[in-house]
Amino acid sequence: MRWWGWGRPGHPRVLPERALHRLSQRLEACAHPRAPVALAEVALPRPALSERALTALDAVVGSGGLRVDHLQRVLHAAGKGYPDLVQLRRGTPVAAPDAVIYPSAPEQLPALLACCTEHDLAVVPFGGGTSVVGGVAPLRGEHAAVISVDLRRLDQLTGLDRPSGIVTCAAGLRVPALEAELSRAGLTLGHFPQSYEYVSVGGCAATRSAGQASTGYGRFDDLVLGLRCLTPSGDLALEAVPASAAGPDLRELVLGSEGTLGFISELALRVRPAPERRVYEGFFFETFAAGVEGVRQLAVSGAKPDVVRLSDEAETRLSLLLAGDRSVKARGARAYLDLRGYAGGCLAILGFEGASQEVGQRRARAGALLRRAAALRLGRGVGEAWVSARFAGPYLRDDLLGHGLLVETLETATRWSELDGLRHAVAAAIDRSLRERGTAGVVMCHVSHVYTTGASLYFTVLAPQQAGEELEQWAAVKRAASEAIVAHRATITHHHAVGRDHAPWLGREIGPRGIAALRALKTELDPAGLMNPGKLIDR
Amino acid sequence: MRWWGWGRPGHPRVLPERALHRLSQRLEACAHPRAPVALAEVALPRPALSERALTALDAVVGSGGLRVDHLQRVLHAAGKGYPDLVQLRRGTPVAAPDAVIYPSAPEQLPALLACCTEHDLAVVPFGGGTSVVGGVAPLRGEHAAVISVDLRRLDQLTGLDRPSGIVTCAAGLRVPALEAELSRAGLTLGHFPQSYEYVSVGGCAATRSAGQASTGYGRFDDLVLGLRCLTPSGDLALEAVPASAAGPDLRELVLGSEGTLGFISELALRVRPAPERRVYEGFFFETFAAGVEGVRQLAVSGAKPDVVRLSDEAETRLSLLLAGDRSVKARGARAYLDLRGYAGGCLAILGFEGASQEVGQRRARAGALLRRAAALRLGRGVGEAWVSARFAGPYLRDDLLGHGLLVETLETATRWSELDGLRHAVAAAIDRSLRERGTAGVVMCHVSHVYTTGASLYFTVLAPQQAGEELEQWAAVKRAASEAIVAHRATITHHHAVGRDHAPWLGREIGPRGIAALRALKTELDPAGLMNPGKLIDR
Repeated sequence: MRWWGWGRPGHPRVLPERALHRLSQRLEACAHPRAPVALAEVALPRPALSERALTALDAVVGSGGLRVDHLQRVLHAAGKGYPDLVQLRRGTPVAAPDAVIYPSAPEQLPALLACCTEHDLAVVPFGGGTSVVGGVAPLRGEHAAVISVDLRRLDQLTGLDRPSGIVTCAAGLRVPALEAELSRAGLTLGHFPQSYEYVSVGGCAATRSAGQASTGYGRFDDLVLGLRCLTPSGDLALEAVPASAAGPDLRELVLGSEGTLGFISELALRVRPAPERRVYEGFFFETFAAGVEGVRQLAVSGAKPDVVRLSDEAETRLSLLLAGDRSVKARGARAYLDLRGYAGGCLAILGFEGASQEVGQRRARAGALLRRAAALRLGRGVGEAWVSARFAGPYLRDDLLGHGLLVETLETATRWSELDGLRHAVAAAIDRSLRERGTAGVVMCHVSHVYTTGASLYFTVLAPQQAGEELEQWAAVKRAASEAIVAHRATITHHHAVGRDHAPWLGREIGPRGIAALRALKTELDPAGLMNPGKLIDR
Repeated sequence: MRWWGWGRPGHPRVLPERALHRLSQRLEACAHPRAPVALAEVALPRPALSERALTALDAVVGSGGLRVDHLQRVLHAAGKGYPDLVQLRRGTPVAAPDAVIYPSAPEQLPALLACCTEHDLAVVPFGGGTSVVGGVAPLRGEHAAVISVDLRRLDQLTGLDRPSGIVTCAAGLRVPALEAELSRAGLTLGHFPQSYEYVSVGGCAATRSAGQASTGYGRFDDLVLGLRCLTPSGDLALEAVPASAAGPDLRELVLGSEGTLGFISELALRVRPAPERRVYEGFFFETFAAGVEGVRQLAVSGAKPDVVRLSDEAETRLSLLLAGDRSVKARGARAYLDLRGYAGGCLAILGFEGASQEVGQRRARAGALLRRAAALRLGRGVGEAWVSARFAGPYLRDDLLGHGLLVETLETATRWSELDGLRHAVAAAIDRSLRERGTAGVVMCHVSHVYTTGASLYFTVLAPQQAGEELEQWAAVKRAASEAIVAHRATITHHHAVGRDHAPWLGREIGPRGIAALRALKTELDPAGLMNPGKLIDR
């Protein structure tokens, strides 16, 4: 991955000139992109590892497993959040690991933890490195040094139990590699976050990832049946069982632990038959409220699509603006909408996957409900256009950053009855925080996942960067949004996780007793506090 | 409830004479029932509460909230497990609470906990009192005395959010009362354990209950969105959100905590539209293996019924034997099966609930799959007969106990690929443990819940009691079954919970680090160890 952004080095820009032109009319984007600094110019702290510690680490992971070169340290200096990218592009990351470790066998992990305990090294488990909340920031905390442990070599698929639909694999396995392997067996995991191309199964488990099709296939935490977590105080292994009443569910304490308890080293995951049929369609609602009621009806009726994405008016406008050049179909859709008088409405993408007959029946029931909700069917062209661009967001963000725009995404979830109030409150709070700095922008939102009881809201913020105060501007947006979210008793994150950036608000969500419970658990499993300092629990 | 068994005092016996006669031919049941001792003869330990403690408790809960009479102490001396009933009928319960407290407002609970901390009183939260694993046994542990806190007066339905399908209520609310209230609003919780008539929502949450329709509506732990747990060290309140990635899920820590962390005082539960249509049908498979494959196909295909109950050959035989007198339809079914040459096979009850069209479509898809699996459709009469007797089990058990039979039920869950091996191993282990004592009996089993990845197995054991060693005989059965379950890496309990009886095996399931994590959490939230001593974690 590019050290300063998303995708392989050399990946072409995804933002067409004319779309950029239209955007810059609204947002004062710079006409000419600014490139990041050269790799050699990235300033890193001097490595803090003692010779003794280096020798000990080398003894654990062997030749090639220990890296201290500039590129490796830069590649593990940050995740892919907006502040991370701003700092990397400038060449001033706040931190860098003193070494990067690539274990080649799970048996090395307990020895590695023992070595880190002995030499007082903080440990950052590193999966795909795609965190947008500072989850892999190599913060040293109170320790002598910090290492980043990149798990990509631990990528074995260790078992496939076909009748049970359970696959067992090492935590460093990338999701696309697993999906490819499953596909050969006629199966699917069904987990497609926007970061799909890079994420590892361990990272998805550690952060309670949700994918674009998680409305149907289940969130990643729903897919985990069993796991092994190697903690500094020992091995926590929880067997894959379909369900249990054997006390508190410790799987649910490891899920979402974000590397703060230990290494998730192995997972047993639920897989499904690969869908025989996939249908993605576009629908249009006159208002967001009508759209919310429409998708709520689908969620509670047993006609729930596997993918539900309902954009608000602002996001719909921008989608059509940006898609204008890309797709004749989108142009056609826009003309059609104008004709039907739906110009100000909301676009929904609904995806149905599964066995042919079941998909047909479910889609027919959904169609009937949507007609009653006055939704306009736009057809499969719009749906397919969304599918083809489903992983494009992070590439587009790089382009926009280059053109001097702030691009932040954040998300939450709440019950249906609170959804529209929450959307207005968060959007207004973000808008206010931008205006106060004289950098008014666009705040867009979509419903990204639906449940019988509620839904998630995913916000995208675009604004001209406040030159010289890019990070303060971003922090003001983050703070405004987070305060509005906790004030509405919604969750501080539906699928981005807590990391460093949401940690100040976790206590507002789970209360002082909740924080105390997490601390007690951490103290038991990681008594020296080595695992991923500064994440999850605010200090 | 009867202090020595199930149901209201005076409930008629449910076992017809002829069925008893047939049973006694197989199992040497006594012809004449033995009655329990008289209430006054039940021997209780002398109350250990000091006058100061009694005065302090009285000050917290006021007049009528503190009970120390014989009947109240007996009613809270045990749950409804087989050893509990054996001891109660004999008049020799192992323990009794020194007082029974009936709080009348949730605000009394923190004061009550403070009082218990001050006077070193162990606290047993008591919901419906239906535990079959010793979950409400009033064990004093190391403390000065023990009180049982019966939460039945905390039964307020505090909120109904219709668009979100979320009901909020106090933990003492009985499930039938909630269901009745929801029914008036066209809604259902859909939770129908065999203990339905008596269970409280708090008890279901504390024990991760599963109901007969939980294959469709979800286990109780799936229904809990938010909760409040009052612990000796403070209040843990977790908001109802549809999903979250905000760290480890602390709800899942309170669920299954079995009163060992604090009082679950309030719950936010997911409710659904009441089903427009309910169809229960009987099917017959030639073998258990064929039946398992048939219901597995339903589970993975998106044609999953809401109720799945597949009996093995032994249970099918006994069901038909006992039903013979009750139901003309069952007699008809038996004759029909004989005619078709299915005499040795396995009965399955499948139930479908929901919106009419959806139920129709799902049932049709299920029917097609079952035809391919060579299942014989027995029709709705058999299904309705099961529905009408769905809560009869505990009454029948009282009758059988009276006739000198051991009646134990135990359950587990595992992945599909291990299911039949587990069934054979557990049945053989139980059978061996009975034979070794010269009390050979009948071991029956059914699949009670199905998931895409596996299923639960529910065993029923009937045997002549070993006179004078009834508890040792039961303990041998329990030990044999539990050892077989953990050896097969299945869960020690799918829905009965851990309580006192499964505690010795929990460590085999979650390992020493798992136990250490639970202990650390308990120490944080209940530092004096007052809450429900001797349960969940083996000392």
